[in-house]
Parts: sequence; structure tokens; C-alpha cells
Amino acid sequence: MRFVSCTHGGSRHAALVDGEDLIPLRGVAELGPATPTSVLADPPLDRSATFPRSAARLRPVVPSPGKIICVGLNYRAHIEETRREDSAYPVLFTKFATSLVGPTDPILVPPESEKVDWEGEIAVVIGTPARRVSEADALDHVLGYTVANDVSMRDFQRRTHQWLPGKTWDSSNPLGPELVTPDEAPDFPDMEMVVRYDDEVVQRTTADLMVFPVPELIATISTFTTLLPGDVILTGTPGGVGDRRDPPLYMTPGHRISVEVSGLGRIDNELVEG
Amino acid sequence: MRFVSCTHGGSRHAALVDGEDLIPLRGVAELGPATPTSVLADPPLDRSATFPRSAARLRPVVPSPGKIICVGLNYRAHIEETRREDSAYPVLFTKFATSLVGPTDPILVPPESEKVDWEGEIAVVIGTPARRVSEADALDHVLGYTVANDVSMRDFQRRTHQWLPGKTWDSSNPLGPELVTPDEAPDFPDMEMVVRYDDEVVQRTTADLMVFPVPELIATISTFTTLLPGDVILTGTPGGVGDRRDPPLYMTPGHRISVEVSGLGRIDNELVEG
Repeated sequence: MRFVSCTHGGSRHAALVDGEDLIPLRGVAELGPATPTSVLADPPLDRSATFPRSAARLRPVVPSPGKIICVGLNYRAHIEETRREDSAYPVLFTKFATSLVGPTDPILVPPESEKVDWEGEIAVVIGTPARRVSEADALDHVLGYTVANDVSMRDFQRRTHQWLPGKTWDSSNPLGPELVTPDEAPDFPDMEMVVRYDDEVVQRTTADLMVFPVPELIATISTFTTLLPGDVILTGTPGGVGDRRDPPLYMTPGHRISVEVSGLGRIDNELVEG
Repeated sequence: MRFVSCTHGGSRHAALVDGEDLIPLRGVAELGPATPTSVLADPPLDRSATFPRSAARLRPVVPSPGKIICVGLNYRAHIEETRREDSAYPVLFTKFATSLVGPTDPILVPPESEKVDWEGEIAVVIGTPARRVSEADALDHVLGYTVANDVSMRDFQRRTHQWLPGKTWDSSNPLGPELVTPDEAPDFPDMEMVVRYDDEVVQRTTADLMVFPVPELIATISTFTTLLPGDVILTGTPGGVGDRRDPPLYMTPGHRISVEVSGLGRIDNELVEG
């Protein structure tokens, strides 16, 4: 199944995708903490309230996650371009929920930063509480998959050794368009991600090339924190970020950035002054 | 005024401290996003439901903040003991809301870590939305002050260059006991913090010794993210962490750690196996 969070007729809805239509879930304003696996497995559909997808505005697919955990340096090509050392443990940091925007919302290019970069990523949404889970059991806790752009202000990311100030600007995290349940998502080798800046392909990978695969990420993170329904894990970006090109290429107003993952969907955001 | 978040008679309440009594706020289950400055300035008190403080269990004073932003290396004595370089920009990282516990709840010492350390801190809670605010206006956005312990698993903090895995273990963030509104909080030079491991004083400072004072922290953070009511800023720990003693001293089950700030109150937590 595929689900969205959207606004329609002035109201917010979580909704099931049914071809060109959206069927809202009764009494559920958005995907996230209120839609654990137990709810989405048998969603309370209000079929009489069905509306066309074209009449809805898509919101971030999980608008209010309790956590967004980001993985750095999770593809070999990106590790090499950053000239950082390999690590036996994933590099983990965060973005705040206030950074989320919808799959076609504008990304604000702030006047304070001159180094606004893309990072296409595959995102995992948690569906059941997870603490100290094994790799073998980890995928049982996945609610679904979606697409993200971990927009990064490189100058602010490097203000100190901790990356937060470069990672959580308002509107720096397009997320969506749909939550795709595991049964409908492609296998990792078939999950191909392509990132385009305007028409140029700037990043391309498949999900099986992650250094720390999704089960290991969930097992590792759940060692130290309780993952809860709606929590989002951004699984890292492959090679090809603008900051490591020669010469570097940063995003500026008037251009577009898109991230497309086969079987999951596409987010496509215009850069605007902000 | 002073406020708490608590449970009493099986229900959750935000409540005004009135001597030995607590007066619940009508229809408000906890302090945080639902209690911006406009609400606490004229709290909807349900005086007929007053109960004795001794009959309540205090929860984290802000149980569900949208963000917890932590400041590293914000006192000279701590910078020197860590042998890190000065920075012109504050070191910023995060803890998740799932790490919060009440002012007298146990702190779990996990079997995975052998380096569980204390970090007494003064915490600021935001009361009105703040984006790109000046230092001059910053304190207008403060809802109040409280006391925190940024319990840190040093071995996990150093797994990679990003600190998150050592900073956000479940129960690693006692917060409370009370939210003290700015009019009732001491001036920063009079805000003295004392941290005790069992009976030994291990950290001591006054808040005016921060390298980046509270107005500068709010101005800096609000440059890149919108601070919202209920957001918490942990303003950094002074010298005296266990990890930098010779020999190092880490917390183990059976001991207690307390953080007391003059005029704000005291959190006192037992270390237990977990």
C-alpha cells in the first residue's frame, strides 16, 4: 500500500493512494506517531470521503516525527569524495521536524549560506517501538520507505565539528511523496536513486550499496534509543554532492533539485530565495 | 511563577507551584508546546482541583519538546579540560525527547557502556516562536529556566566524530524540577550550579561564565531553525566531568548524581542497572 499526508479542503488527512484518488483515513490527520504498523495494516478508510489526488496538496509524508536520525557517509563513493576515513560505526546526526517540507514545496536558499548542497536519500519510517532489536528482527519494525533530500548548508555544517547547524535549516528536508509499505517496496538492489539538479544527473546509486544496510542501522540506533512509530531514518547519500565537485556546485534560486527512487517515487523542489 | 509537569491521581497535569501545593492548569496535560508564554502569563488555573505536591510525581518539566538543542564546550574550564580549541561558534548537537526523565527518576546505566558521565547544565525553555532574532530581543522568547543533566556515554560519544550515539540514551536527560519564569529566576551571575556525585561536589559554576551567553545562543540557533514554544536549550556544562578526571570517574549503579542551581531547584537521580 501507499499512503500520503496531505491537505484537502482546508483539512489535513492521512490517506491511502488508490490510483488517481486518495481515500482518507478516518480521524487521522497525518502519518506518523498516530499511524503505527497496526493502524496501516488495516487502515480505517473513509471511502465516502475519497477525493482526487490532483485536488490535494501533499505535505511531508511524516510531518511530525519524534526523531529524524540521519546517517552520514553510508556509501563508499561518498566516503571517498569526502576523503574521510572508514568507520566501523555509522556516523549519526539529526535534523529537526521543523526542517520538513512537502515533496514539491520550495526549498528556501537562505541569505546566510553560500553553500547549499543536495543529498538525495532513501528514508525509512518506523512502525513499531524498537529498542535493542537484532539485525534479524529489524525490518519487522519498518512501517515503510520514502524519499528525502538532506539539504545541507556546508558552510554552517563546518562551523564546528558538530554538523547540526548545517543540517536543520527550515525547509531543508523535503520528504515524500508517499510512504510505501515494505511489501510493495522494491528489494534494496532494485531501489535505484537518481538525483537531478535541473536536468543534470548528479547522484545515482542503488540501496544495496549502503555500507551499513537498513537492518544494521536499526539495530545500531536501537541500542541507545527507543525508536517509536513515525521516527524517520535518512539512510545516507551516495557520491556526487555538489560540495565535492571540482569546481564545487551549490544550489541557487531559480533551479530545481529532484530525488527519484524507483518504486518509491520522486520529490522535486524549486530553490527560492529565503 | 514556578510550574511543573506531573502525574496525580492517574492523570497528567501542568500545574502552578503554590507553596506546598500544586494548582493544575485546566485542560493542560504538560508544559511545552501547549504552554507558550501567552498561556503561562495568565495560566488557566483550576483552583478547586489543587492537590499537595507530595501526592504528585514530577515528570520531566517539559516532557515532549519539539527540539532539545545542546551546547558543547560553553565554559572555559570545560574547554580546557577537554583540550579542545576555542571556537567562534557554539558547538551544537541534540538529545531526543525520548531521553527525558523526571527530576528524581532513576538514570539507567546500560550494560553496553562503561563510560557513563555527568554534565550538569542550566536549561532554557522557549516561549514564543523565534527565527532570526537579535541578541537584544532574544530573552523575550524565553518561557523560563530549569535544571538538566546531559548524561553522556563517552565511549559511544566517540564512536565517530558525531556525538549523537553518546548523547541520547533513554533516561539520559533528567529535566526539572520546575520551570521558573524569567521574572522569578536569578540573574545569570547569581545562578550558581553545583553538581554532586553522591556527596562529592564535582562541578561548580555560575551562569555568567558561559562563553556564549543565552542571548547569543538564541540568536545563533534561530538563524538556522525556528525555535518553537517548548523547545529546550541545554546551555553547556562547566569543568569537572568525570571523563577528564585523573583517573577518570564514571557513574555506576548504586550511586546518585544531583544538579542544583540556586533559585531554580535541584534534580537528584539514582543510578540503576538498565
